[in-house]
Amino acid sequence: MFNYNKTVNIVVAGAAGRIGYSTIFRLAAGDLFGDGVTVNLRLLEVSEAIPSLMNIELLLGVQLELEECNFNALGEVIITEDPDTAFGDADYVFMMGTTPPSEGMNRSDLLINNAKIFAEHGRSIGNFAHPDVKVLVVGHQSNTNTLVALHNAPELNHENFSGMMQLDVSRAKSIISNYCVVPHTSINGIVIWGNHSTTLYPDLNHAQIKGIPSFKYPGITDNWYIENFIPEVQNRDTSANELLVAASAANAAIQQMKMWISKGGSSLWDSIAVLSSGQYGIESDLIFSFPIRHAKGRLYIVNDLDIDEYSMSMIKLTEAELIQERDIVKKFLFRHLLV
Amino acid sequence: MFNYNKTVNIVVAGAAGRIGYSTIFRLAAGDLFGDGVTVNLRLLEVSEAIPSLMNIELLLGVQLELEECNFNALGEVIITEDPDTAFGDADYVFMMGTTPPSEGMNRSDLLINNAKIFAEHGRSIGNFAHPDVKVLVVGHQSNTNTLVALHNAPELNHENFSGMMQLDVSRAKSIISNYCVVPHTSINGIVIWGNHSTTLYPDLNHAQIKGIPSFKYPGITDNWYIENFIPEVQNRDTSANELLVAASAANAAIQQMKMWISKGGSSLWDSIAVLSSGQYGIESDLIFSFPIRHAKGRLYIVNDLDIDEYSMSMIKLTEAELIQERDIVKKFLFRHLLV
Repeated sequence: MFNYNKTVNIVVAGAAGRIGYSTIFRLAAGDLFGDGVTVNLRLLEVSEAIPSLMNIELLLGVQLELEECNFNALGEVIITEDPDTAFGDADYVFMMGTTPPSEGMNRSDLLINNAKIFAEHGRSIGNFAHPDVKVLVVGHQSNTNTLVALHNAPELNHENFSGMMQLDVSRAKSIISNYCVVPHTSINGIVIWGNHSTTLYPDLNHAQIKGIPSFKYPGITDNWYIENFIPEVQNRDTSANELLVAASAANAAIQQMKMWISKGGSSLWDSIAVLSSGQYGIESDLIFSFPIRHAKGRLYIVNDLDIDEYSMSMIKLTEAELIQERDIVKKFLFRHLLV
Repeated sequence: MFNYNKTVNIVVAGAAGRIGYSTIFRLAAGDLFGDGVTVNLRLLEVSEAIPSLMNIELLLGVQLELEECNFNALGEVIITEDPDTAFGDADYVFMMGTTPPSEGMNRSDLLINNAKIFAEHGRSIGNFAHPDVKVLVVGHQSNTNTLVALHNAPELNHENFSGMMQLDVSRAKSIISNYCVVPHTSINGIVIWGNHSTTLYPDLNHAQIKGIPSFKYPGITDNWYIENFIPEVQNRDTSANELLVAASAANAAIQQMKMWISKGGSSLWDSIAVLSSGQYGIESDLIFSFPIRHAKGRLYIVNDLDIDEYSMSMIKLTEAELIQERDIVKKFLFRHLLV
């Protein structure tokens, strides 16, 4: 772990939501850094999401609960509606505050609504967060939300930002683990490409199951891959109980942040959504999930995998969706310092 | 830790509730035993609480989430409506399934409704659980619910059952910690007496703050004690946001179970609700919160504290409430083997 300080400032934006609520208590319990590191929590209320007063009331309840847990790792808790207060000297940011989809609202409306939030938060992060801040964006439309945030923080490097794909990786592993009756720890090298949406492409061509190339493992056939595996990973989010998917998303967010700051080398690679600069022919200036190695707290795109024709056609589909999303939010994209 | 087995069976009864939901993921993450012990989870749906089908659907969502977290410590997950299935060879039981208070339902109705659930579960625990099972009862009216459960499990010892008071202890510590500006770890020896309700008596007469007898610590006066401290501990549950008190209750339940099975000696004593056999003049056959020492996985009532007149009057009030509650559920009390 790269703990340069004994005290870290962690922001949970959208803290009053269900994923936020699940995340906060795990952070306070020291799940990210273990004992010995004091965690200051800044709980940022996102007033665009639900009525402001209600959220603040909920967060005051959370603060009372946190106090009553007497967590050893927990330092100060700040509840605020002001991004500049929340993000001041922030070391780690979990951006979980998005507009929930509501009836009569189409995908464009949602993207625009979220872009307003992420542009404001991005500006504030650029102005006030620690230069080494790690910003993890979670939730619906997280790729494009990440793009908006980093465009509005030109003071920082694009490497300060990433979008969460860990839940999709976990789902893919869990499906294979059940189907092949193997422990999830024996599955390595899955790549999730593209957007955290139903167009993502879960690629098994470079994966190993118990060290065996996945397509040579008993039961893994092209037919199962295309007819069952891919659609199941792509659509699981929408089929799962919307009410309850909170603790697993919180767990994935903590896992992904932990991986970002921990020592690398434990697996072939992870899948994380980061800024494309044209790798694998993907258009640059998109937040795209690639195979990622991490070392010394930094993320590197693994750029030398061979991609077959089918896979490239799937990757192009999810790229097209991201280009379309970027077009919708283009008036929020200000950054001049792109790679 | 007293891990006699490498695999433990943990039951969460009322798993579809909000406290249950918060508890399950911490158990699956290995928070109770740490790495190296496999946790089998049995999620028992309590159909008396809310419509059965809805709960089962919720629990299937939870199961999917658990799978997708790929927890290393998690073994089998069973979802069931059948207590006998859930409690078979159970090692640890968190009883969190109670009837939620609803409009037009008075305290007696609620006690009777809960008594039906806890009598059924108690019988099943007596018949099928491991003889060393540790049953922790959480939630409203937990003392009397515990009494009903143990009366219906005459095959077991009353020491297999206890009621949760950890949240009240944590609250008392958190209030003193804020008021005296001291870390919660410097506060020791608080006793919470009696019922987990607004009649509980939080006793500072034997407590120490930074090793100083509490009433000699600056700021702790009789007036503050009686006018502020006692009512604040007693009423905090009702003043807190009902919607949100889930993660702190789950945390307290895990803390109390952890304490029960861990090595003793880390504090003067803890407060836990256990069966009275007449200590301090309290009527026997009540589940009453006493100062408790624990060693070798067993709980011992500390029975030699001097109780002043004021304290005894407060203790008698909470005893009276428990006697009244026991009268209401007396037709559910079958046990013939009382201490």
